[in-house]
Amino acid sequence: MSTPIPVEFWYDFGSNYSYLAVMRIEAVAKKYGVPVQWRPFLLGPIFQSFGWNDSPFVLQKEKGDYVWKDMVRESKKYGLPFRRPTTFPRTAVQATRLALLGSNAEWGAEFSRRIMLLNFALDQDIASDSLVLAVLRDMGLPADALMVAARADEVKARLRDQVALAHRMGMFGAPTCMVGSEMFWGNDRLDDAFRLAAGR
Amino acid sequence: MSTPIPVEFWYDFGSNYSYLAVMRIEAVAKKYGVPVQWRPFLLGPIFQSFGWNDSPFVLQKEKGDYVWKDMVRESKKYGLPFRRPTTFPRTAVQATRLALLGSNAEWGAEFSRRIMLLNFALDQDIASDSLVLAVLRDMGLPADALMVAARADEVKARLRDQVALAHRMGMFGAPTCMVGSEMFWGNDRLDDAFRLAAGR
Repeated sequence: MSTPIPVEFWYDFGSNYSYLAVMRIEAVAKKYGVPVQWRPFLLGPIFQSFGWNDSPFVLQKEKGDYVWKDMVRESKKYGLPFRRPTTFPRTAVQATRLALLGSNAEWGAEFSRRIMLLNFALDQDIASDSLVLAVLRDMGLPADALMVAARADEVKARLRDQVALAHRMGMFGAPTCMVGSEMFWGNDRLDDAFRLAAGR
Repeated sequence: MSTPIPVEFWYDFGSNYSYLAVMRIEAVAKKYGVPVQWRPFLLGPIFQSFGWNDSPFVLQKEKGDYVWKDMVRESKKYGLPFRRPTTFPRTAVQATRLALLGSNAEWGAEFSRRIMLLNFALDQDIASDSLVLAVLRDMGLPADALMVAARADEVKARLRDQVALAHRMGMFGAPTCMVGSEMFWGNDRLDDAFRLAAGR
């Protein structure tokens, strides 16, 4: 039996379709027997490199209007709670750095799900340090130490590298799955990415 | 038994994801027992209303690069032939007017599939009158009469109305399915539209 290629899962805490994928991915990964490599990153600098100063769902009104209706239907389809965030897109730099720290630890996936639920089911300000701190505490983690660790220059540099790598790979949105050099954009392509990784 | 709502199927002959949907839709419709109302239209004037002078897949290079890789995989997934058109997007006004004429006739669906295959599997210039004429002849239709009928002022006006209606409904891309006032954008939402129409 060959070892399946892991699926690199790139997501942004402000991205609504990333929310759906973050909540679903472990079940999909289990179904295909393929490991996930969590890759939290920031879409903002990528959009800026295209000359955009906001999400395309804000810049293009017609698509934006549609997306929130689609989100209501899609969330229902997957059995996920959803409330349209009053601020969109939210940029959560500290939470993203923490997710990066957690991406090689046991707690990373659950931390990411909690941040996503706060943004897209509870409409909370995920950029708030006190909120992020409360999440870490609630998970029984060394919250204060992690908050400090996430602000280390090394972690900041790692996040910048992550964004630069996304850019170099031609990423233009989130969620995006990479299987080797093969790119799959969107929650709608999650299964396709895992199917390729599983060699089916 | 309640009569299912028909799915209005809006498509543009130049749109690559419309190609996939045009080829698949009758099988999906049959599966759900829901009728299709074919709605050929032109995306160009809609894009122009957004201030775009070309397809977003051309204007945004990163997404454009991705889309053609996605098309290779998606065509394979659905068992459809695919060759990237050397001209993109192709605008086929006469073929669209003919499809509009055919949309209430027996031959409309098959005509649309043939035009789509010429564009996305055979890389032919579907804006060419002689090519469109050959398609009609090959289908055993009164080709010359239809070519003339499609140029009648009434048909031109009908196509303009169709585009204006799409715009008023907030359409921003193709394919788009309408189930009553509920909009489903993209080949990826085809099943969802039919599921709603079937009341499942």
